[in-house]
Amino acid sequence: MKCVAIGAVRSLYRSRDEAPRQGAWADDVTSAIEIEERFLPALVGLERYSHIWVLFWADRADRDVITSDRHRQWGEQRGIFASRSPARPNPIGLTVCELISVEDRRVTVRGLEALDGTPIVDIKPFVPALDCPTNPAFGS
Amino acid sequence: MKCVAIGAVRSLYRSRDEAPRQGAWADDVTSAIEIEERFLPALVGLERYSHIWVLFWADRADRDVITSDRHRQWGEQRGIFASRSPARPNPIGLTVCELISVEDRRVTVRGLEALDGTPIVDIKPFVPALDCPTNPAFGS
Repeated sequence: MKCVAIGAVRSLYRSRDEAPRQGAWADDVTSAIEIEERFLPALVGLERYSHIWVLFWADRADRDVITSDRHRQWGEQRGIFASRSPARPNPIGLTVCELISVEDRRVTVRGLEALDGTPIVDIKPFVPALDCPTNPAFGS
Repeated sequence: MKCVAIGAVRSLYRSRDEAPRQGAWADDVTSAIEIEERFLPALVGLERYSHIWVLFWADRADRDVITSDRHRQWGEQRGIFASRSPARPNPIGLTVCELISVEDRRVTVRGLEALDGTPIVDIKPFVPALDCPTNPAFGS
């Protein structure tokens, strides 16, 4: 179960202190994903989507975390699978981003909290009928 | 970037022919995720969520796929990052499931298309404000 990097993030966020905790809170900051040359044909058709899932490998996150430190500070016991922290056994970040453009090997998005240099492991289209159980069209 | 299995799927789906292509189309079938003993504390608090993200390693999917075979059959060229097929460079399946129960090491869900025996690599709570850009509360 070994992941390959399909690309890497180019972001203004260089440290955890600078980055928002979740992509949805990233305001108006754009980031670029530079795709590895050999995966370029995998991008064909992506531009038709308004939003995409970006799965990244949070390489600066601690993998030995089982319970949530933040919730502990709030006086609550909470396991890491009930948290969206990137610090977890498999540090796979999952963020839905607004797709701005796909140009050559560069995918530009809004709303990605991943730090500069973070490896990308997957991109998938965001599909409300598959991804939002609160959407009336879910499952159709 | 090596994933560890945090658990495995127990499902009625034993082959790709039996499974729906997407979890949202899985009708009323329930599956269980059996969590590894050492990760049990990571489940604390999960029961408060109605839906969870299940990230699984689609171990029977072809990783050498760059373009979508299904779209080609429809006469369309489409890259695999513009597709939700599990066959992709990193075969990480991403499915939002209805959470039925958390009992000891068994997490029971509805709407998971993963085949019996599939390794689970992560569980995250589904949070509409983070995950559904079509939701009015997104980003709040």
